Amino acid sequence: MMVAKGLEGVVIDTSSICRIDGNEGRLIYRGYDIHDLSSNLSFEEVAYLLWNGDLPTQDQLSDLKKHLIAERPVTDSLKNAIRKLPTSSDSLDVLRTAISTLGTGHPIKKPDIGDAIAITAKIPTITAAFDRIRRGQEPLEPRPNLDHAANYIYMLTGREPDRNKVDALNKYLILLADHGMNASTFTARIVASTWSDMHSAVVAAVCALKGPLHGGAPAPVLRMLKEIGKPERAEPWIREQLKAGQRLMGFGHRVYRTTDPRAEILRGIASKSAEKSFFELATNVEQTGVRILQEHRPERKLYTNVEFYSSVVMDSVGLPPDLFTATFAASRTVGWSANVLEQVANNRLIRPEIEYTGPVDRKVVSIEKR
Amino acid sequence: MMVAKGLEGVVIDTSSICRIDGNEGRLIYRGYDIHDLSSNLSFEEVAYLLWNGDLPTQDQLSDLKKHLIAERPVTDSLKNAIRKLPTSSDSLDVLRTAISTLGTGHPIKKPDIGDAIAITAKIPTITAAFDRIRRGQEPLEPRPNLDHAANYIYMLTGREPDRNKVDALNKYLILLADHGMNASTFTARIVASTWSDMHSAVVAAVCALKGPLHGGAPAPVLRMLKEIGKPERAEPWIREQLKAGQRLMGFGHRVYRTTDPRAEILRGIASKSAEKSFFELATNVEQTGVRILQEHRPERKLYTNVEFYSSVVMDSVGLPPDLFTATFAASRTVGWSANVLEQVANNRLIRPEIEYTGPVDRKVVSIEKR
Repeated sequence: MMVAKGLEGVVIDTSSICRIDGNEGRLIYRGYDIHDLSSNLSFEEVAYLLWNGDLPTQDQLSDLKKHLIAERPVTDSLKNAIRKLPTSSDSLDVLRTAISTLGTGHPIKKPDIGDAIAITAKIPTITAAFDRIRRGQEPLEPRPNLDHAANYIYMLTGREPDRNKVDALNKYLILLADHGMNASTFTARIVASTWSDMHSAVVAAVCALKGPLHGGAPAPVLRMLKEIGKPERAEPWIREQLKAGQRLMGFGHRVYRTTDPRAEILRGIASKSAEKSFFELATNVEQTGVRILQEHRPERKLYTNVEFYSSVVMDSVGLPPDLFTATFAASRTVGWSANVLEQVANNRLIRPEIEYTGPVDRKVVSIEKR
Repeated sequence: MMVAKGLEGVVIDTSSICRIDGNEGRLIYRGYDIHDLSSNLSFEEVAYLLWNGDLPTQDQLSDLKKHLIAERPVTDSLKNAIRKLPTSSDSLDVLRTAISTLGTGHPIKKPDIGDAIAITAKIPTITAAFDRIRRGQEPLEPRPNLDHAANYIYMLTGREPDRNKVDALNKYLILLADHGMNASTFTARIVASTWSDMHSAVVAAVCALKGPLHGGAPAPVLRMLKEIGKPERAEPWIREQLKAGQRLMGFGHRVYRTTDPRAEILRGIASKSAEKSFFELATNVEQTGVRILQEHRPERKLYTNVEFYSSVVMDSVGLPPDLFTATFAASRTVGWSANVLEQVANNRLIRPEIEYTGPVDRKVVSIEKR
């Protein structure tokens, strides 16, 4: 039996959502290059594209925006449930619990685009409510006159953010919205393949995203950058880290054999949204890291991955590091739900096998004789 | 590219937990046949076996029981959170939300056996609390003098159950505790492969179990049996169902090419625990269903699956049908957590690929021109 541990290179299905070319370093949603999408569109337009397959007309976009805005508020009952969670909770645990709570009280039904819109609309509201509650502040009501990215920053800070920050967050939300069969999206598809509901699929995806090998890395990247502090400390810090057998956060990706296109675009965004000295530190750590890692593994060049500059961009927007992964979820939920819709449209239960290599032919003996 | 839709026959890893021989109709945990385990052991002993690899000595078993008993109670705060959920909620949605809530307030850590014990101990408490709350009753405190199966029935009913029922539920809990790479266990392993925590892995597994193609079938089986009502109505009812293009619930399994050994054992349990006339109805529906399905698909004989007699056994124990899947979760959580522990002991991130077959080389045009 051939064992495909980690399922590397195993193709689980066909899809018309997202194409990753790991050799060329290209990422495409529904036929559009990620550079084109992130330079020209809003998060809402890209969400429409991922869910529906085509870009919206003016009317379609305005319908979607209305629908998203109407779905943003959460009930007092949900806010109270969030209030009851420990303030020390991981923001992903809060999101997992809140989306799960939203999924109660309805009979099970086939996932549809309305579910996708409702969950996407509420993730920023939930995350911002938790952040304000843990700071002893009242959650803010979403503002219908602000777009998705701007409203998220507003609900966190209570201030209308400047255009630069909104633009940076909008682009981040587009760039992270989907990425092939990453562990969380794959999880969402498996859950959907059992004919479970959209809320369950998204909750399960959040569970997978929580892991540091998947969604949990941007905050440690920021911690690393702050710890390094000055460009001249990058080299000794990185060498010490590797000598101690530690992973360098923010470098390497299973799929890309060249630069991750998202990392490139995020670097460009960070150059505008981050403080100049911090951006320079980041580029210095990037170059130093790539160089030293190549000394260690000459056979495969490692580049910065999406998490490296994600952390710089999210920090520049004013997001606290422990909300980075929840913000990743705010973006990726579009990809999760688009994949769920595709899965249920042409479903087959996802049920692989595992090779048993344990003991055989044992017989139960009475407990006194064990 | 070869597309392995549904991952049928794809082997994701090696494991020493559970072996399914679909051709021989055998199921083995850690080298012991399921017949041997279910005739001779308690659920607690089998849980120990699945988590640790060997059967417990007297001392090890008594330690585990103490630990499970100590972990059974849930806080008032969790009970209040359950009280706030709609009484119409699906019991799996309640379980998903409650386990997620239990997982808040702790820093992320590597899954360990203590997590497995804590979650396994609390699932019956959560499910029974929800059932009593929705009936307008106070949740009952678990009874330390009762074993796992007996205490579950006690917390639901407020009465110490008779030996027959406890025995039937104990065997059910053993038989369903693990079953290879079913969708929920696979989901738990994927979540664990991202270095996420045990609560997230189990929550995600619950999300997958909720689907009618996986854990959601026993209640519809019972509904079918009640609808058929009398043995002589079995044949016309089934023929009508199939004529209308409906699936027959409780028949067929992707893995077994012969009788599911669990179905055989559960039939034996049901013959003792169910009312005689209802058991006779069930065996009649089984035989009629197998015969008619073979007329429809002569190339592959379909047998009753585990859900068919699970439903009869759970009904005979006094469980309401809408708690069947939550009770399945109470058992399978042992397998989920055993698989999580095995995954993290020798981990590789599970990240497959998907083949892009959508449009290419599209360019964003301004919204006015769409």
